[in-house]
Amino acid sequence: MVDLTQKIADYVKQSKVSNGIITIFVAGSTGSIITIEFEPGLIRDFPEMLSRIIPKDLDYGHEQMWHDGNGHSHVKASLIGPSITIPFVNKKLCLGSWQQVVFLELDTRNRNRELILQIMGE
Amino acid sequence: MVDLTQKIADYVKQSKVSNGIITIFVAGSTGSIITIEFEPGLIRDFPEMLSRIIPKDLDYGHEQMWHDGNGHSHVKASLIGPSITIPFVNKKLCLGSWQQVVFLELDTRNRNRELILQIMGE
Amino acid sequence: MVDLTQKIADYVKQSKVSNGIITIFVAGSTGSIITIEFEPGLIRDFPEMLSRIIPKDLDYGHEQMWHDGNGHSHVKASLIGPSITIPFVNKKLCLGSWQQVVFLELDTRNRNRELILQIMGE
Repeated sequence: MVDLTQKIADYVKQSKVSNGIITIFVAGSTGSIITIEFEPGLIRDFPEMLSRIIPKDLDYGHEQMWHDGNGHSHVKASLIGPSITIPFVNKKLCLGSWQQVVFLELDTRNRNRELILQIMGE
Repeated sequence: MVDLTQKIADYVKQSKVSNGIITIFVAGSTGSIITIEFEPGLIRDFPEMLSRIIPKDLDYGHEQMWHDGNGHSHVKASLIGPSITIPFVNKKLCLGSWQQVVFLELDTRNRNRELILQIMGE
Repeated sequence: MVDLTQKIADYVKQSKVSNGIITIFVAGSTGSIITIEFEPGLIRDFPEMLSRIIPKDLDYGHEQMWHDGNGHSHVKASLIGPSITIPFVNKKLCLGSWQQVVFLELDTRNRNRELILQIMGE
């Protein structure tokens, strides 16, 4: 998990838009964006929940096809989704005090990731 | 669960924007927004599903850290997500006839909640 | 599952907007939009995961109320969500190479579906 909150907040601050929404999107099918309280407990709990409902070692059709060992990664990513849209007002993200925006790597190997940040507003 | 559909529809109607999208966002990490047919059966079924896959009494890291009894609330909220974006045309939300927009309280105690409604369009 | 990627890409190309976001929304409470690598393995794996965590034959309150056999369809659809928002730049969707936008029919019978595509940008 990578906490993106500060980077997103900075990006909004440096833009010319005061009020609007920002969409953060993962270009890829084995990563996701969530909001979560970014603390050590939940950093363990959330992936554990995913592995409980989408175990690594089931008989995945994706595995039979591609043999890259990441069928569960794809299924997890499609369940959670590739993006989050967050409103901002006066260049400030409308997040709760204990709510961070986090990239979730779901693949079995480390990867370089392209995230798209798109701001809309006025 | 709180049905927000009428409030959101009114907010769109009273805005100066005719066509666009509205984003509803929960500023907080233990509540979520969903669309659902808001009827007594599903009002029971949906939380039951969540409690089945994310039981209250597992050994949550969040609980060991904070002892506030709501580890499962956080995990549920991060799974479902904090927001919904809905298109509207001629100031009318593009919802199905049996599709309502609903706030889902996932915490263990009642809380005052801040929801942000952000309209984009022309 | 229906792969919508080409239709959405065409729609963006034909619009007057060069940079922005497109929201794809299902007007209905038993269908969803996901992104996924659209290949035969995952086309089997993703629905299997959903049926594992939300089985067809539980005692759904929705079933007791309406007797239409699709309580699980509603619960699945509310979990995954009705929409996806995708950024685009120079009229090109910011998708990964193996990431498609897919409509997921979750109801027990085939239905005509209304999808709303709303483009925002400049």
